[in-house]
Amino acid sequence: MGNLAACCRSFWCKPKNPDIRISLPAVCFVWQIAMIILFGLFVRYDDESDAHWSEHKHKNNITSDIENDFYYRYPSFQDVHVMIFVGFGFLMTFLKRYSFGGVGFNFLIAAFGLQWALLMQGWFHSLDPNDGLIKIGIENIINADFCVAGCLIAYGALLGKVSPVQLMVLTLFGITLFAVEEYIILNVLHVRDAGGSMVIHTFGAYYGLTISWILYRPKLDQSKNLSGSVYHSDVFAMIGTLFLWMYWPSFNSAIADHGDGQHRAAINTYLALAASVLTTFAISSLSAKKGKLDMVHIQNATLAGGVAMGTAAEFMISPYGSLIVGFVCGIISTFGYLVITPFMEKYLKIQDTCGIHNLHAMPGVLGGVVGAITAATASESVYGHEGLVNTFDFEGNYAKRTPATQGGFQAAGLCVALAFGIVGGAIVGFILRLPCCWGDPSDENCFDDEVYWELPEDEESIPPILEYSSHMVGKNTDMMSQSNFTVEQS
Amino acid sequence: MGNLAACCRSFWCKPKNPDIRISLPAVCFVWQIAMIILFGLFVRYDDESDAHWSEHKHKNNITSDIENDFYYRYPSFQDVHVMIFVGFGFLMTFLKRYSFGGVGFNFLIAAFGLQWALLMQGWFHSLDPNDGLIKIGIENIINADFCVAGCLIAYGALLGKVSPVQLMVLTLFGITLFAVEEYIILNVLHVRDAGGSMVIHTFGAYYGLTISWILYRPKLDQSKNLSGSVYHSDVFAMIGTLFLWMYWPSFNSAIADHGDGQHRAAINTYLALAASVLTTFAISSLSAKKGKLDMVHIQNATLAGGVAMGTAAEFMISPYGSLIVGFVCGIISTFGYLVITPFMEKYLKIQDTCGIHNLHAMPGVLGGVVGAITAATASESVYGHEGLVNTFDFEGNYAKRTPATQGGFQAAGLCVALAFGIVGGAIVGFILRLPCCWGDPSDENCFDDEVYWELPEDEESIPPILEYSSHMVGKNTDMMSQSNFTVEQS
Amino acid sequence: MGNLAACCRSFWCKPKNPDIRISLPAVCFVWQIAMIILFGLFVRYDDESDAHWSEHKHKNNITSDIENDFYYRYPSFQDVHVMIFVGFGFLMTFLKRYSFGGVGFNFLIAAFGLQWALLMQGWFHSLDPNDGLIKIGIENIINADFCVAGCLIAYGALLGKVSPVQLMVLTLFGITLFAVEEYIILNVLHVRDAGGSMVIHTFGAYYGLTISWILYRPKLDQSKNLSGSVYHSDVFAMIGTLFLWMYWPSFNSAIADHGDGQHRAAINTYLALAASVLTTFAISSLSAKKGKLDMVHIQNATLAGGVAMGTAAEFMISPYGSLIVGFVCGIISTFGYLVITPFMEKYLKIQDTCGIHNLHAMPGVLGGVVGAITAATASESVYGHEGLVNTFDFEGNYAKRTPATQGGFQAAGLCVALAFGIVGGAIVGFILRLPCCWGDPSDENCFDDEVYWELPEDEESIPPILEYSSHMVGKNTDMMSQSNFTVEQS
Repeated sequence: MGNLAACCRSFWCKPKNPDIRISLPAVCFVWQIAMIILFGLFVRYDDESDAHWSEHKHKNNITSDIENDFYYRYPSFQDVHVMIFVGFGFLMTFLKRYSFGGVGFNFLIAAFGLQWALLMQGWFHSLDPNDGLIKIGIENIINADFCVAGCLIAYGALLGKVSPVQLMVLTLFGITLFAVEEYIILNVLHVRDAGGSMVIHTFGAYYGLTISWILYRPKLDQSKNLSGSVYHSDVFAMIGTLFLWMYWPSFNSAIADHGDGQHRAAINTYLALAASVLTTFAISSLSAKKGKLDMVHIQNATLAGGVAMGTAAEFMISPYGSLIVGFVCGIISTFGYLVITPFMEKYLKIQDTCGIHNLHAMPGVLGGVVGAITAATASESVYGHEGLVNTFDFEGNYAKRTPATQGGFQAAGLCVALAFGIVGGAIVGFILRLPCCWGDPSDENCFDDEVYWELPEDEESIPPILEYSSHMVGKNTDMMSQSNFTVEQS
Repeated sequence: MGNLAACCRSFWCKPKNPDIRISLPAVCFVWQIAMIILFGLFVRYDDESDAHWSEHKHKNNITSDIENDFYYRYPSFQDVHVMIFVGFGFLMTFLKRYSFGGVGFNFLIAAFGLQWALLMQGWFHSLDPNDGLIKIGIENIINADFCVAGCLIAYGALLGKVSPVQLMVLTLFGITLFAVEEYIILNVLHVRDAGGSMVIHTFGAYYGLTISWILYRPKLDQSKNLSGSVYHSDVFAMIGTLFLWMYWPSFNSAIADHGDGQHRAAINTYLALAASVLTTFAISSLSAKKGKLDMVHIQNATLAGGVAMGTAAEFMISPYGSLIVGFVCGIISTFGYLVITPFMEKYLKIQDTCGIHNLHAMPGVLGGVVGAITAATASESVYGHEGLVNTFDFEGNYAKRTPATQGGFQAAGLCVALAFGIVGGAIVGFILRLPCCWGDPSDENCFDDEVYWELPEDEESIPPILEYSSHMVGKNTDMMSQSNFTVEQS
Repeated sequence: MGNLAACCRSFWCKPKNPDIRISLPAVCFVWQIAMIILFGLFVRYDDESDAHWSEHKHKNNITSDIENDFYYRYPSFQDVHVMIFVGFGFLMTFLKRYSFGGVGFNFLIAAFGLQWALLMQGWFHSLDPNDGLIKIGIENIINADFCVAGCLIAYGALLGKVSPVQLMVLTLFGITLFAVEEYIILNVLHVRDAGGSMVIHTFGAYYGLTISWILYRPKLDQSKNLSGSVYHSDVFAMIGTLFLWMYWPSFNSAIADHGDGQHRAAINTYLALAASVLTTFAISSLSAKKGKLDMVHIQNATLAGGVAMGTAAEFMISPYGSLIVGFVCGIISTFGYLVITPFMEKYLKIQDTCGIHNLHAMPGVLGGVVGAITAATASESVYGHEGLVNTFDFEGNYAKRTPATQGGFQAAGLCVALAFGIVGGAIVGFILRLPCCWGDPSDENCFDDEVYWELPEDEESIPPILEYSSHMVGKNTDMMSQSNFTVEQS
């Protein structure tokens, strides 16, 4: 408490009060009602999900319902959906006492974010010029999930240190920034980034890291005993890891071109991820006494190959190219956990709970670079004339763009993503530090579900000294609280 | 024991003997053999899964294998399958000491139910008039999974209080009632209910609640210390929640019309579910001291939007309409957990372990009403002429039905579902109370896996007073059972 | 230690040193670099995943992108992928203290194996005669996952008793043997085995069992207190079971013929699995005091129906035929756990951690036999002329083969699988016993993650006597290690 008092002399700080009974419901209601109104004003079904589809078919000489985009993309959509909610959600359950917050707040902000993303991305990409309405179909909801991924990555850096109200604000601004950044990169610069190495991972990671830097908590070590994992929470986190790992080929191929585009994107990602696993195990073992593996590396760095293939997955990078990307990323990412995260925390004052710098920032940037190089070296001999045009969309205004130019624009896109992440993160971080009823936890309460969740009875009703038995089955709580047992403790 | 003696004076009661060594194997064998015989007599492949498919193609001018219904529906089928076994199964692992029973008995009755459902639904819907045989394909196995869902919902009300033998009987009758009810609603009344707000959720919930009412256990509080959750069991339950939540768009679209029907059903469900999440978090936080969230709400009420979109998902309810449905359901359902479930237990003598009244009954009824209204207000201007005919199947005998009439029939369908649930539940509840070797647990053994499962050794071999350490790693069991440690306890 | 000294007198044995700090990274790096080089030399995209697809379409009069094989098989591929990594991985988390090793090493060897499988299978099946390059597409990556499954089955017998370095070697040889065996069975003998009862399950199981026999550890009971499960590890294992069970229809149909072939394979597998569940519950209950169910049976024997349908799933075995296969397998497999596994351990010196003999070996052999009989009894009246030719691929060199002959070849294929499993296992087992730096654990360290993993702090920092509290939340570690609490222990 003395600490808190001292702290409050600073302009920004006042005693933390993590009561969110008014603020969280208010934010949820206001934003959900706003969504309903905006959807009512702006959002309708597109040609393929509207009941006029049968007329649309006749008009466009479509012979079969199976040509509906739904059948091209729905299986990938569901895989992406699992990555967002179970993948990201369970990956964040690794903390010993923040599993509810990890999976629960992930659920909350993703459910809000996808609605706001449908609007923001819709205004930029799916506006029907005839009636000024956003027309949504399967590709929009995949993109909404993608957009949410950026904010969930940012949450990874802040896990355990912010309130759900702050997360809702982070998401509101994050989605907005994402949509603008994506529009500039994909439409203005005409850059290809099907799996989002740049627009999703680079942006999301630097957005989160910058916010974390601004919200730096110098006394976080007061809650250090909760910042690790326990045996079973690590197994839970592996559920998240594996669903991310397995479905990443769907992530990178979900909005790629029909036919060979989706096909190739899936194969490339599959290979890069496999290579990442081997180098992650290698570096993790190499770095520890007796070669013991570290679960943190296995849970995270094995995924780096998927991040780094986000841009190039649909290109003709060739199978061995994918393996090389995965090989390098597994090494870099594990190395990041070993060296860079502690360095950043100590010297740069950036506290990165899940190590998103290693899993998303570095592999994302690398992915952007790989994409730029692969694009710049593309040729008609490798792609075929038609293939080259299709893959890079060299049509309309861009009919004359060469692969080399495209490579340059890809690199420019990466810079835009970086700039939006850092500048946007700075602004939002500043907002989240404003004196306001954010309800964020005090330093000693970080990483503790106790703050925002009603925990199961058996965890609370027990005298503190007995908490070591908090996983007991509960049957004998009564017996234990009385009698000789407690006597012995005193 | 004195309690039991007293209890036995009543006609119905005799001392409980939860030994199922004869009864469970007998039921499993007899019913499985019956299934084999009935399948041998009645069930064959349909045109699309039979090796004559290639001839069928030629005859019907089908140009490509991709037109096989398998490719339209198999991805959705697999998602539904995950909902049935992992979704429902893990949602029921939340109890601290009934996780085996939750996921295990769910597995057993679903595996039986789907076989019986293929027969019952087959007789009503897929009978080939030429040879009197049931012809099955992908749509039949989706429908069988749907049919099973009704019984699993009912299990939710009874979780921890009945024996597997009782569950098998509940399932046998439940599937039978379901098939009849479904035939009346879908075929006789020509009602649309692709995602089953009425036929699955309303029926299943009232079926289970009525049975629970008849099997009321006045002394259930004797086992109350096992009726809660522990930290990790709540995380397990979130696996169930999330797989239900993520795959619900597949559930509501799995048997909708090819093309725009499936497409629209998925989008509408996606949106309704997202809105439910926000209002669930809002009400949960609003209702508790310091705004602390309750895992029970998050695990359940977030799903209410999916239930309520079951009927209207394939209609042109429009995106904002879906959001409104989800918005309302999240509120109602969370409110139900806060107020209605305790009220029902105290005053109506209905013990509802999983709160299916809040998750399935109320949202299901609401979904039926929403469906009726949406149908009644349908028009050619919104659907297009062809779209209206396709969506509501206004063909053949029903060519002259108007949307307004359809709305009336939809409402009638809801009443049929309610009636079948309540009356059927009363009959089956009565049967399950007959003095017989059901093997159900005594009041003090409810919610305890001990009764029906061999629990891992380390949980049993320890003297009671030491049970608080039942999650120990086991290494030092020996050390502990002897020596000064136990001495201190005595 | 005295034991070890004694042990070392034997030729093979020397003191175990489970340090893998050099060997594991070395193996991972060397093999991954070899993969990159070999992929660079040999592997390219096939027609459907290459950017020349649009030209390929024109040339072959393919009218739509949806005809790309990607859309026929990708959803099934993803399901298979989940089975390999989450299914097998989590099924092996059941041990109380080997969950990291179960899911982690499964991850490692699968990620390596699939790369090597793409090469080995590619050389045999997908070599382009024009340029000598392997051309890969979606079917290749499904087959690579299948190939990996064989090695993961073998791992099941050895779980907890070998080092990751040994597993990498086992996988290298296992994949190689698999590819040769598969080539002989599928191409030389022209046998049908879409779901791999023979090529995957029979081979993999006997490969693993033979290795386990050669690596027999007579003093394994020294670590017996870790060879069981705890409550939550059993629930984790159910995640694996259910994902295997639910997605098995995709496994058996993933590479079946387009159209009715995939459709029928999925339905048959769905039914066989359902029947297995009922007979597993029946036998499990019948065999125990008071009819209590055993989680080991439920986790494993329920899957036997899927294994046994591997060969016959795409045949016209008819729905009731599938139910009979599942019925029988559930019984045999559960019986195996009750009787055969203990017998094998005691008398045949085969230690089979996961009971793969019951889940893969017996049902696999049975599946091969069922396949042979079903093939031998096939007829044009049941399949139609075209259907018969398509299903058994009686084209080209095999245009004159009759169903009866095919049945004989199917039986021959089973023998080949058995022979490769046993002989190959013997060779590899012998290699793994060579005195070398394998880093395998000593008998008393088997089934213990401690050996190869950095365990979460709270498990290590506590004095041994306190380990019973190893699942504590950790908050009060400090308080506990000092003070009166420890005093009492001394």
